Amino acid sequence: MNSLSLTKAETASTDSGDKVNKIIDCDVHHILPGFNHLLPYLDKQHLHRIEQAINSKAEARNNFQMPRRAYFHPFSTARVDTMDDDGTNHAANPELVKEELLDRYDIGYAILMGNDLTTLSGMPDPDLAAGIAKAYNTWTDDVWISCDPRFKHSIWVAPQDPAQAVEEINRWGSHPDVVQVAFSQMDILLGKRHYWPIYEAAERHGLPVAFHVGAESAGLNGPQIAVGAPTYYIELQTGVVSIGINNVISLVCEGVFERFPQLKVVFLEYGFTWLPGLMWRLDREWTSLRAEIPWVKQPPSEYILEHMRFGSQPLEVPKLEHLHQTLEMMSAERTMIFATDYPHWDFDDPAYVLQRLPKDMRQAIATDNARELYGL
Amino acid sequence: MNSLSLTKAETASTDSGDKVNKIIDCDVHHILPGFNHLLPYLDKQHLHRIEQAINSKAEARNNFQMPRRAYFHPFSTARVDTMDDDGTNHAANPELVKEELLDRYDIGYAILMGNDLTTLSGMPDPDLAAGIAKAYNTWTDDVWISCDPRFKHSIWVAPQDPAQAVEEINRWGSHPDVVQVAFSQMDILLGKRHYWPIYEAAERHGLPVAFHVGAESAGLNGPQIAVGAPTYYIELQTGVVSIGINNVISLVCEGVFERFPQLKVVFLEYGFTWLPGLMWRLDREWTSLRAEIPWVKQPPSEYILEHMRFGSQPLEVPKLEHLHQTLEMMSAERTMIFATDYPHWDFDDPAYVLQRLPKDMRQAIATDNARELYGL
Repeated sequence: MNSLSLTKAETASTDSGDKVNKIIDCDVHHILPGFNHLLPYLDKQHLHRIEQAINSKAEARNNFQMPRRAYFHPFSTARVDTMDDDGTNHAANPELVKEELLDRYDIGYAILMGNDLTTLSGMPDPDLAAGIAKAYNTWTDDVWISCDPRFKHSIWVAPQDPAQAVEEINRWGSHPDVVQVAFSQMDILLGKRHYWPIYEAAERHGLPVAFHVGAESAGLNGPQIAVGAPTYYIELQTGVVSIGINNVISLVCEGVFERFPQLKVVFLEYGFTWLPGLMWRLDREWTSLRAEIPWVKQPPSEYILEHMRFGSQPLEVPKLEHLHQTLEMMSAERTMIFATDYPHWDFDDPAYVLQRLPKDMRQAIATDNARELYGL
Repeated sequence: MNSLSLTKAETASTDSGDKVNKIIDCDVHHILPGFNHLLPYLDKQHLHRIEQAINSKAEARNNFQMPRRAYFHPFSTARVDTMDDDGTNHAANPELVKEELLDRYDIGYAILMGNDLTTLSGMPDPDLAAGIAKAYNTWTDDVWISCDPRFKHSIWVAPQDPAQAVEEINRWGSHPDVVQVAFSQMDILLGKRHYWPIYEAAERHGLPVAFHVGAESAGLNGPQIAVGAPTYYIELQTGVVSIGINNVISLVCEGVFERFPQLKVVFLEYGFTWLPGLMWRLDREWTSLRAEIPWVKQPPSEYILEHMRFGSQPLEVPKLEHLHQTLEMMSAERTMIFATDYPHWDFDDPAYVLQRLPKDMRQAIATDNARELYGL
């Protein structure tokens, strides 16, 4: 495992030296213990398809499955110490998440991103995908959100059918604990008009839209790069930055933020070290090519700094000086939000991460940026 | 146009202040005036297919065409001042290239990358593609290389058929002016075994292999990113970095440099600002995931620093401090080679670029790295 942790002694000494307000963890993966837990929440039209599969014997049991990525992790995508011997993950139990994450690291809020719908966007049937999202959101509200005020809700929508996604956003938009709309990538770049109804609804309710890694090569989704499918998991894991890059470009160039000036977009697990160079390149090319995209009225970097936020995890671990230079280049004091990615294998320990951040950015990255973004 | 130029006065003052050895320009695009110029060099089996199209009337004239990218540049991919009113480009005339590029900027060597085969890798017929590459290389040798010792030859191969590519490398491998093997991307990532015979031949002859931007969305090639095709040229132009990123990952993770320890690989026009973050991320992930790729025995960044070189053009134009920090992070004094991209629209003026480089890196980037790479 490469989860980055300090010893308890180090944590204590860091905490005492550099107090920040309580951390907001923007990428916590609560786990659905099994799809049978969704049965009480599914609309009738979808219920029988899933129920039949779950309750039947032998082969039929696998009739319903969520799409899976083509690449398998060489050991486990869950942190080994969060799994019991019977395979149960602590992140399926709200009480354990409170104890192991919120209390242990003194986290003020955890934005629940789920763990089970990251491949939903690869599902062929748009109605079934929308039905699962709807049931899942109600389950999260029922089982998690109502049990601790520190849990905040990022509802999932199925991007395959924007109309049903809008219905779902409208259903939750005024719920006080719902702070975000989430979906993963499909084979349409994020700036395209396909998604505009979703952006309109999210903006109207004051909710950011989050894109989370996870649907690459799952279901109908092809490999992440059109110029050839990678062979190994490490290529998937490192190459996902290119999905972030192309979607940032798409959102800017299609004029999404001129159309929806209050919209905020969050990128989780796509990395951030590529952001400075991308802003420079977009700004340089925009000076010559903007006749093609006249609705882009400002240098692209201005839209990015104003409208986009990037999760800190996985934090790259170069020389400290290089990390600080990169954070300064991307104005991380505005653009970065903190995330642990609990309970995943590459979990970032808050104390370790905070210690590596420049002192004058800690408060903003650990809590202030997320507080402003989510209205907490 | 965003070509970056100094006035003559600025050039003079820069030159007098910071003399470096003569520049080596690693990306110069000499132009084929028309495919009829290849007819004398084509093997008989291919000749009739192209000749018939070129010499016929009306629709049949277009029967033979090189693949074209789906995106068109909003004004012109050639620098406007390199085109005459009749559409002739100065880069089709060796005498004008000597005058306008080599003499004007005091360039010691120009690596000729051609302009007409960048989409060859998107051509469906592997035999025709190999035949065109063969004729084109002979034409370049005949018309360009033999007319000035400053012109050096980067031969093109068609990656569709590695066996014929190897034949072509063997044909030129001991020619004193041939310094490199070039091809563009197709829908197979560069680390895959498909290309290994090409790498073996290039290594055996001591020739670097260069990948040049240009085949995205051309012919059989799909869009650059599998998660959706961009809409605008500026998205193509900025998003190509993701092709560079994924191919760097592929070359490292497939173990190409353990298999071919003398091989050097050159990336032209894919950018470089993403390189530091990619090295950090690969190194971090490799510490946990290397069981999957046991042939990768060193941290990935070590293979990159040792075996890969990156063209300077297009040079991003952030604050000078940020540029210098980025160059230091990527060890540009080892990894960067200078290029103008003449006669393309986003030409980088040597004096302007050199002035922006850190003084202690100028000599290495302008000339020494390329001199070592190409044995000049």
